[in-house]
Amino acid sequence: MKITIDQINEMETRYRASLVNSLGGFKSVVMISTISYQKVHNLAIFNSLFHLGANPPLCGFIIRPDVSPRHTLSNILDHKYFTINHLNEGIYEHAHQTSARYDESISEFDEVKLNRETIPGHEVVYVKESHLKFLCEFKQKIDIEINGTCMIIAEIKEIVLPDSALGNDGFVDLEKSESITCSGLDSYHRTKKIARLTYAKPNTWPIQIES
Amino acid sequence: MKITIDQINEMETRYRASLVNSLGGFKSVVMISTISYQKVHNLAIFNSLFHLGANPPLCGFIIRPDVSPRHTLSNILDHKYFTINHLNEGIYEHAHQTSARYDESISEFDEVKLNRETIPGHEVVYVKESHLKFLCEFKQKIDIEINGTCMIIAEIKEIVLPDSALGNDGFVDLEKSESITCSGLDSYHRTKKIARLTYAKPNTWPIQIES
Repeated sequence: MKITIDQINEMETRYRASLVNSLGGFKSVVMISTISYQKVHNLAIFNSLFHLGANPPLCGFIIRPDVSPRHTLSNILDHKYFTINHLNEGIYEHAHQTSARYDESISEFDEVKLNRETIPGHEVVYVKESHLKFLCEFKQKIDIEINGTCMIIAEIKEIVLPDSALGNDGFVDLEKSESITCSGLDSYHRTKKIARLTYAKPNTWPIQIES
Repeated sequence: MKITIDQINEMETRYRASLVNSLGGFKSVVMISTISYQKVHNLAIFNSLFHLGANPPLCGFIIRPDVSPRHTLSNILDHKYFTINHLNEGIYEHAHQTSARYDESISEFDEVKLNRETIPGHEVVYVKESHLKFLCEFKQKIDIEINGTCMIIAEIKEIVLPDSALGNDGFVDLEKSESITCSGLDSYHRTKKIARLTYAKPNTWPIQIES
């Protein structure tokens, strides 16, 4: 079926949000852990994380300041450091629940019953139950005027992952860290590897990498 | 295990690229179809697509102008319209092969043996073998000076998807469109739904949505 722009524009708000969110395909889903000026550990689920570059190691994500999670942005701008924590099947419901609109004096760690893992020399914490997580330092905020969102750019300062997940070539097997993926606004999925493929060059055909 | 920023900085370039790329988690993987001023249909694989907003329907992705795919950016800036095409298991090798450095006079459609699906009133085409795809109009280019990349923002103008994939609430079941996900630089994965969860509110716990 074909859906035209006129049909999209006429859709009920939540129907359109669900449809357009789905078009992005399977997405990264993580919890961002921040700390407020009142020293409350905030935790919020995000599904717009993307790789920005490896040297320096940079990632980015989109925040909508007008909707929840509302405290993540101000905490990042205030404190600069935060952590990004992959989800797994054991904690995806807890992670989903962090999107509820809790008051900023309340820590989502306590409300959704996830444990804090301290980081020597830092006030921000990891999610203990997450198997793959990394410490980030805020670098830049870019306002996206077309719809009032903004992009946060951060540098990766430390990585925590299971020994077994890291391959000889730097590839991280996200199935070994039990990371999951999401789609749309509310759907969570496990994965099963099809294949890794060799670097593509003209006049050849990619073959599977054994790993 | 813990990997420090000093260890990251000392890594061999390709090892670091593979590691840092993996941290983003499972990612959207799509082919972007553009047309050049010479009317060559270009096709390139991208794994940085993200949802930006539903009203207006917007998506974004990151381009590294210094590396392949090199022609996508100039084609988008010249022609404004392009298409985004989800991968499926039948075409993931073809899609991967579009990342080879073909000359700009060569169409990746021909080289990797994917078929063009024309769009009435437009010169850009869809990938016929893709089951979920949409037409985009370029809106904005934002330069990310920190590492010389840029973000492209586009508005979604038309959506093509299987009837069976679209739910009553606007949710698209990406497993019914056979969309796949990727991780790192070169790993492809199918998915299996764990659950959809209800909208999160304080003092409740999300439950599974039957769909």
